[in-house]
Amino acid sequence: MTRRPLIAVIGKSARNPADPVPAKALRAGEEVGKLLAERGAVIVTGGLSGVMEAVSRGAKNAGGLVIGILPGFDKRDANAYVDVAITTGMGWMRNTLVVRAADAVIMISGGIGTLNELTVAYEDKPTVILGTGGWSDRIREVAYQGKHLDEAGTSELHFAKTPAEAVGLALALAPGAETGKTIEREFRS
Amino acid sequence: MTRRPLIAVIGKSARNPADPVPAKALRAGEEVGKLLAERGAVIVTGGLSGVMEAVSRGAKNAGGLVIGILPGFDKRDANAYVDVAITTGMGWMRNTLVVRAADAVIMISGGIGTLNELTVAYEDKPTVILGTGGWSDRIREVAYQGKHLDEAGTSELHFAKTPAEAVGLALALAPGAETGKTIEREFRS
Amino acid sequence: MTRRPLIAVIGKSARNPADPVPAKALRAGEEVGKLLAERGAVIVTGGLSGVMEAVSRGAKNAGGLVIGILPGFDKRDANAYVDVAITTGMGWMRNTLVVRAADAVIMISGGIGTLNELTVAYEDKPTVILGTGGWSDRIREVAYQGKHLDEAGTSELHFAKTPAEAVGLALALAPGAETGKTIEREFRS
Amino acid sequence: MTRRPLIAVIGKSARNPADPVPAKALRAGEEVGKLLAERGAVIVTGGLSGVMEAVSRGAKNAGGLVIGILPGFDKRDANAYVDVAITTGMGWMRNTLVVRAADAVIMISGGIGTLNELTVAYEDKPTVILGTGGWSDRIREVAYQGKHLDEAGTSELHFAKTPAEAVGLALALAPGAETGKTIEREFRS
Repeated sequence: MTRRPLIAVIGKSARNPADPVPAKALRAGEEVGKLLAERGAVIVTGGLSGVMEAVSRGAKNAGGLVIGILPGFDKRDANAYVDVAITTGMGWMRNTLVVRAADAVIMISGGIGTLNELTVAYEDKPTVILGTGGWSDRIREVAYQGKHLDEAGTSELHFAKTPAEAVGLALALAPGAETGKTIEREFRS
Repeated sequence: MTRRPLIAVIGKSARNPADPVPAKALRAGEEVGKLLAERGAVIVTGGLSGVMEAVSRGAKNAGGLVIGILPGFDKRDANAYVDVAITTGMGWMRNTLVVRAADAVIMISGGIGTLNELTVAYEDKPTVILGTGGWSDRIREVAYQGKHLDEAGTSELHFAKTPAEAVGLALALAPGAETGKTIEREFRS
Repeated sequence: MTRRPLIAVIGKSARNPADPVPAKALRAGEEVGKLLAERGAVIVTGGLSGVMEAVSRGAKNAGGLVIGILPGFDKRDANAYVDVAITTGMGWMRNTLVVRAADAVIMISGGIGTLNELTVAYEDKPTVILGTGGWSDRIREVAYQGKHLDEAGTSELHFAKTPAEAVGLALALAPGAETGKTIEREFRS
Repeated sequence: MTRRPLIAVIGKSARNPADPVPAKALRAGEEVGKLLAERGAVIVTGGLSGVMEAVSRGAKNAGGLVIGILPGFDKRDANAYVDVAITTGMGWMRNTLVVRAADAVIMISGGIGTLNELTVAYEDKPTVILGTGGWSDRIREVAYQGKHLDEAGTSELHFAKTPAEAVGLALALAPGAETGKTIEREFRS
């Protein structure tokens, strides 16, 4: 892979004031963004608020490149640190695009949208979970044998304790994912 | 709603021989399909094997109408009981379309694809879970307060003990969902 | 193909009062819907107004089955003759789904949306054009050699003079299209 | 708009050896890519061969940033000059995403895929056509009054004679398009 690795960071948005993003998730997000940028990775997120914004800010401040894949048609939805705003007009279906675009995925905190993205990532993309509240803390006990999201164990979640470990793992796992869709096969074409 | 209600049934496929669909899930699927058809509902599934096929067979044998929204481009992927095969060419992204099409959702058993569909359904569609193995059995303990998939509790899962109860609940909840997307709002348009 | 053929009818909507659908297109649409229903085909349209509504009405009145694939999230957008309203939330991107779902396509009249659908249909689906105003009248002179939409002539448009001829042609051409995507190949998977 | 403008360049691919891309289109593409990069724009294309590759090469050689939105799941499908390869797994439906992402669109040459993209761009994005073979040469005579793709004239195509004029026009028109979807309204939400 001569192209720079493309790492998706998924995490809780700040859309619901009654359900704030944990401060530790925002701090972790900013650090993950910074480290990814320093390591030369391109960052892709859903482009909105909360963890998406923290990651983007961290990356931007370290000179990184940030892609935001937005649910709507309006580029003004993007947070201030998004370099390239990709408006999709697909609503939350764009979650799938965020994951499909990535070479590897890092999960921070996690509301319902993040959980949705995790289920997309599970089979096809190396996925690293950084325990920082919400589903990122709960998924380990919830998963089969602490690491699978299906009984057959077709894939395996990875866990990290620190932003540095998460970034290191994601970048180590990314190269093999370039060809995508190793598992997606229950239909003819 | 003068149109017949459209109920999505989501459940595990039989694609992986090493990870078979529980027999009780197949029986429940067939019964749910039958009851939905008898009550005049249109059934929509992902169109493939396992629970999708069992539901379709139950509905067909009771004279029902079955829509299958397929991941690929080839109509031969559809199980034998699908009346209308909608080829999307979107891969598993079609999961989102299955849920978006529905007035209500019934979940039976559940592998990773079903879990993905559940996370799509959570915010926008009335969702009834029939405990029949896999995630359908585990989600209650996994959910916040046994019924939410987010900390803020923006929506609520419903649980049923029998196919009849699941069908009754789904049909009771369906009318209010006709307008869709009551929650999907973190972006401008 | 034991499943009933699924024929997409594409045509101008009535959304713009300043740009009305030609009366002959509405009449032709209603007749095409009627004939398709009488011949046992399932009809799929974009579910909205104008030609889509006329076709649906013709089919419904003849006892047919009508699928509407809608751009938004709200089932009330569907015209009154749609049996199964598939809300996609993808905006005009749903045009592609209307065509991908079909075994064959019939084009009636044609504004910009219809022209978009025609370009999707060209390579992968047998397509019959019934000259009834708008692009349906102009495409013949516009096409390469009166029948191709690309210089290489990878596919061929079909033309009909009457609703009966259009329906006959579409149903004759439909079976071979079941497997889809014979041409879509410039990428690996 | 403090974000750099995002200009989509659409044009014929080299997938069909029997239907080569005109040399003038490749030259124009490379020049357009170079000029866009020099003017600070981000370039988005479909990521594959032919005009897409020429534009990307021109932009890269001038130090620009190139996004490729790919139809498949495999990043190796991208041409060598794509910085950020966004795999969508949606087949040609990704054409719509290329256009939706853009602030303005430049069309060079044009096979069937380009024509499809043009119909997507027409209503919602400022679109500049650089006559360089294929549909880019023919669309003017084909269009209503030489500039509309619908009878009502809801939008207007722009034409350029040189790469410099095309780039100048696109960049002049881009800012107003940031909010997207000004016209897409025949449905409720």
